[in-house]
Amino acid sequence: MNSNTFGTAFCLTTFGESHGAAIGGVIDGCPAGILLDKTLIEKELSRRKPGRDATMSARKEPDEVEFLSGLFEGKTTGAPIAFLIRNKDAKTSDYENIKDVFRPSHADFTYQMKYGIRDYAGGGRGSARTLLPCVVAGAIAKQILAAQGVEIQSEVIEMGEAREKDTVGAIIQGTIKNAPVGLGEPAFMKFHAVLAYAMMTINAAKGFEIGDGFKAAKMKGSEYNDEFMFDGERIRTKTNHSGGVQGGITNGEDIVFRVAFKPIPSVMLPQQTVDIHGNTVTLEIQGRHDTCVVPRVLPIVEAMAAMVTLDFVLLKKCNKI
Amino acid sequence: MNSNTFGTAFCLTTFGESHGAAIGGVIDGCPAGILLDKTLIEKELSRRKPGRDATMSARKEPDEVEFLSGLFEGKTTGAPIAFLIRNKDAKTSDYENIKDVFRPSHADFTYQMKYGIRDYAGGGRGSARTLLPCVVAGAIAKQILAAQGVEIQSEVIEMGEAREKDTVGAIIQGTIKNAPVGLGEPAFMKFHAVLAYAMMTINAAKGFEIGDGFKAAKMKGSEYNDEFMFDGERIRTKTNHSGGVQGGITNGEDIVFRVAFKPIPSVMLPQQTVDIHGNTVTLEIQGRHDTCVVPRVLPIVEAMAAMVTLDFVLLKKCNKI
Amino acid sequence: MNSNTFGTAFCLTTFGESHGAAIGGVIDGCPAGILLDKTLIEKELSRRKPGRDATMSARKEPDEVEFLSGLFEGKTTGAPIAFLIRNKDAKTSDYENIKDVFRPSHADFTYQMKYGIRDYAGGGRGSARTLLPCVVAGAIAKQILAAQGVEIQSEVIEMGEAREKDTVGAIIQGTIKNAPVGLGEPAFMKFHAVLAYAMMTINAAKGFEIGDGFKAAKMKGSEYNDEFMFDGERIRTKTNHSGGVQGGITNGEDIVFRVAFKPIPSVMLPQQTVDIHGNTVTLEIQGRHDTCVVPRVLPIVEAMAAMVTLDFVLLKKCNKI
Amino acid sequence: MNSNTFGTAFCLTTFGESHGAAIGGVIDGCPAGILLDKTLIEKELSRRKPGRDATMSARKEPDEVEFLSGLFEGKTTGAPIAFLIRNKDAKTSDYENIKDVFRPSHADFTYQMKYGIRDYAGGGRGSARTLLPCVVAGAIAKQILAAQGVEIQSEVIEMGEAREKDTVGAIIQGTIKNAPVGLGEPAFMKFHAVLAYAMMTINAAKGFEIGDGFKAAKMKGSEYNDEFMFDGERIRTKTNHSGGVQGGITNGEDIVFRVAFKPIPSVMLPQQTVDIHGNTVTLEIQGRHDTCVVPRVLPIVEAMAAMVTLDFVLLKKCNKI
Repeated sequence: MNSNTFGTAFCLTTFGESHGAAIGGVIDGCPAGILLDKTLIEKELSRRKPGRDATMSARKEPDEVEFLSGLFEGKTTGAPIAFLIRNKDAKTSDYENIKDVFRPSHADFTYQMKYGIRDYAGGGRGSARTLLPCVVAGAIAKQILAAQGVEIQSEVIEMGEAREKDTVGAIIQGTIKNAPVGLGEPAFMKFHAVLAYAMMTINAAKGFEIGDGFKAAKMKGSEYNDEFMFDGERIRTKTNHSGGVQGGITNGEDIVFRVAFKPIPSVMLPQQTVDIHGNTVTLEIQGRHDTCVVPRVLPIVEAMAAMVTLDFVLLKKCNKI
Repeated sequence: MNSNTFGTAFCLTTFGESHGAAIGGVIDGCPAGILLDKTLIEKELSRRKPGRDATMSARKEPDEVEFLSGLFEGKTTGAPIAFLIRNKDAKTSDYENIKDVFRPSHADFTYQMKYGIRDYAGGGRGSARTLLPCVVAGAIAKQILAAQGVEIQSEVIEMGEAREKDTVGAIIQGTIKNAPVGLGEPAFMKFHAVLAYAMMTINAAKGFEIGDGFKAAKMKGSEYNDEFMFDGERIRTKTNHSGGVQGGITNGEDIVFRVAFKPIPSVMLPQQTVDIHGNTVTLEIQGRHDTCVVPRVLPIVEAMAAMVTLDFVLLKKCNKI
Repeated sequence: MNSNTFGTAFCLTTFGESHGAAIGGVIDGCPAGILLDKTLIEKELSRRKPGRDATMSARKEPDEVEFLSGLFEGKTTGAPIAFLIRNKDAKTSDYENIKDVFRPSHADFTYQMKYGIRDYAGGGRGSARTLLPCVVAGAIAKQILAAQGVEIQSEVIEMGEAREKDTVGAIIQGTIKNAPVGLGEPAFMKFHAVLAYAMMTINAAKGFEIGDGFKAAKMKGSEYNDEFMFDGERIRTKTNHSGGVQGGITNGEDIVFRVAFKPIPSVMLPQQTVDIHGNTVTLEIQGRHDTCVVPRVLPIVEAMAAMVTLDFVLLKKCNKI
Repeated sequence: MNSNTFGTAFCLTTFGESHGAAIGGVIDGCPAGILLDKTLIEKELSRRKPGRDATMSARKEPDEVEFLSGLFEGKTTGAPIAFLIRNKDAKTSDYENIKDVFRPSHADFTYQMKYGIRDYAGGGRGSARTLLPCVVAGAIAKQILAAQGVEIQSEVIEMGEAREKDTVGAIIQGTIKNAPVGLGEPAFMKFHAVLAYAMMTINAAKGFEIGDGFKAAKMKGSEYNDEFMFDGERIRTKTNHSGGVQGGITNGEDIVFRVAFKPIPSVMLPQQTVDIHGNTVTLEIQGRHDTCVVPRVLPIVEAMAAMVTLDFVLLKKCNKI
């Protein structure tokens, strides 16, 4: 069922837990003959690093990527590209005291119920750190797309004010510029449906919208519709309420979307909860925690968008013989 | 790449265009030995029928389902269940006048660019009518889930006021009740990510949120977090800001989500657009059109939710040996 | 899990039982813009028709294909191509007497054990008739390949002599000519591995080999190896012991393979078996049966080979950006 | 397209080249809660090690497996199990002299044509060493199956006599004992078709047969058919010409199959070939090479058989609700 694999033609399989030996991934389907710029990958990873400003946890992780396969003299060969990032600052013992406690709005309870066993250290497989491989694969996708003129950006458009010991949510807006017309498939693999899927897999994501999104629900068709025009070179839309996608397929305009993130669940205030035996427990979370997904989530949003876009660029090659 | 297939264990492959010979689907992976209640399927289809109230087009379609395979003496056999619905009221000639025109915010332009050819009649493969097979497969999923105590509902929570010749958007809220704990996978096949994907494949859907969704972005962690309690029988949450999913896996609470739909693009007012040659055209849409996706979209929202839920119920069987 | 779907980029989903309402399929991923020559499809189907010579059953089936979707003005549109063939000469009552009996070397017993229910008429989903959709999809693949210069042939190279009331096996050799260099993937989707999979899904197939196949096991490396040469135009091999595939990837030489078919299990002689309750039964099979898979299996072998080849032709487009 | 992934419910993704940094894999879908016996894994790997007898190359590889994820206190957690084996004795410089030469019946030519680039050291991704991860995953599958009573064996039934500087082929017979009835799917995912696919992905495999296989082509139905009987406990077949699979589904008898392997292409005798520019070259292979796939291939045949069997054991859980 491949639930740890993302993508169809450009596929990323990820592995790793927050405090295990390593986090990593295998990219299958990366086109051959591309000279990888590893500084771009490091640059994206450094955007995600903890401890860079006041909203972030102090965990020290060098996050160095080791590539294990798929490259020859710096170029992709068409073979799977495996890579890993060692967890250097992992201390399972830090979490001994909460190993039987279900932290509110974390994945502790659901993992325990689903599998009957869980790696409790730092959230285990449920940690946001498990998204690191997406940043690596996304950086590669970004590089390939950039060579085709496609650019991917993101920005914070709403963020709560950090309160002492509490956490806040945020809304991120992403933009994919210069994506070719014709990406996405009509029925189930609509461009924005796959993009929604990609964004909602990011830890703490609770909402997604494209173009005018939820606001569109309050509009009339005559206000919302994007009229077509010919700009002398190509057919374009006068407005972009659709956010660059019509009928599930990109129309050449900017692809604009927003993702809503809930506040990070690890508040430093006392919380009522239960342990694995059903006993009531007052929990006071210790450890190293961010107060908001921002700004660490920006490179992840961009990485997921890059993987989705590149995937559809490759799939489009099969539309015609 | 199977872009016309939805689901992993319970899979639906759909086919058909609005004004082609038939619309239909093939369900692969339906458990064996289930006595299908065809009246339930017809009931769901009748909820989607046009012409039932003032917001709907007058297209007359009996929408009778013919089952072709996979059933023996009324029971599922484990073999694929194929079915079709003939398009009785199809008139390609009605659309001759717009065959070279790109209707604003329709899929005409993107299909033409992607494939270099398109079936222009009634929107072809891009028509909302192509979702009919989802209603059929969803009704089967619903029946199987109901036998397990799972119930799926939907309601309109926001809808614009219909203005003459114009169209309006809407927000639908869906609820999945009594879903078992442990549905969904941790990394990429998170329950709510697949649900988002499912909902965003519905024509005109532009936004999705689960639990508090976009509102969560304005909340503090201390307000948002769902504390656990033991209710004497099982561990539950006191609140349900998460909407029944934590870490991508269902926690046994109601799964609550909302989908935003844009106004239907076929307004009856004059619109500026271009034809396939780039010439400016004033378009006045004729034909049979709804003014809002509501209420026809309700059974589709429920059908997609049912397929997602049943799929994860089946997949969960493989978690342990 | 899509066990009724074959292929990756060019996908066929099949449905139908021998004596159900219809047999059919949905092709997803057929390139757009291709003018289908339906006479070629009919020609392939007529090669598979029963009753054409003394080895075949007398079942009368017109086997007319009705296309339901995916075509517009005779051309493929990129939308799924659904088609069906009605079962005209179906008589479930003919099989009433064996509904509780497990015919030796048929699928009756295994289906019953697996699903707890089975459509016993004419072998149900296990009938060789369920391969008809492969012939249709294969004929389309053949047409697309022919336009690229690729040709697919098959011939009987061994066949038992028909004995009265008994059945015989056969070996078929297939050849794919002018396939481009570079089809197939190195690790698991090796060209010949997928071809083996394709051939072994044909009813009654019990063995597969490529190039020298089983004979290669008796050879020395110095005899077997195919030395390379430059023929003035391109690099070729002097011999073709490999059967056109090296390291899982086509090398431009003829792809040559053989498939072994067991004798059809429906002999007209008395056989000992048991019924569903474990009682010993002497079975005398009645009805309409072939004495050998040959010659009806030839178009199926070619169809499967064509689908595999076209699939890899499409997948190869993604090797490079 | 995931061409480096094998399996549906129990999935293995592999990576690595012969002389790269490491070879490894990610297992997705391993059931949770299983205490892994690592000595069993090491035992299987040691069966595959080079240099153990006169037919094998002298390459020194400790082949130690490092597990990176998916285990907690020795037990599987349901998260992906990643592992790697460092290539310790890798010397790319050993292969400098053949970097532009296409070795006969190796994958050099086809890789170069397909990707326009290749890792030439030791065969790169085409090396049989890339099957090591299959041995690891297969050992895990074997352990899980053994707990259910299923046993997997293999033996050499034919092997050429080693001639100085030359290589020989072989035929291996595999047997799966005590597999449950009902594994495999009727249409395309037939048990023996997937088994054929699995075996043909093994380097040097050129033929596959199940039960009587190619011999069946020479038999009459009355000789070949396996009559059913009731043995007091369950329904069985008196003979096993079918090799344990009927209609694509296991019937509870021993699953018996054979795989034909060609001679290893690296003969130590001079061979004519061409280089990348089309120039004729006389090649004299140096380095470390086996003379036959036997006995190193035995654990791989068993590993692939174990993965196929476990996959179908898991998939069978979804047959009924």
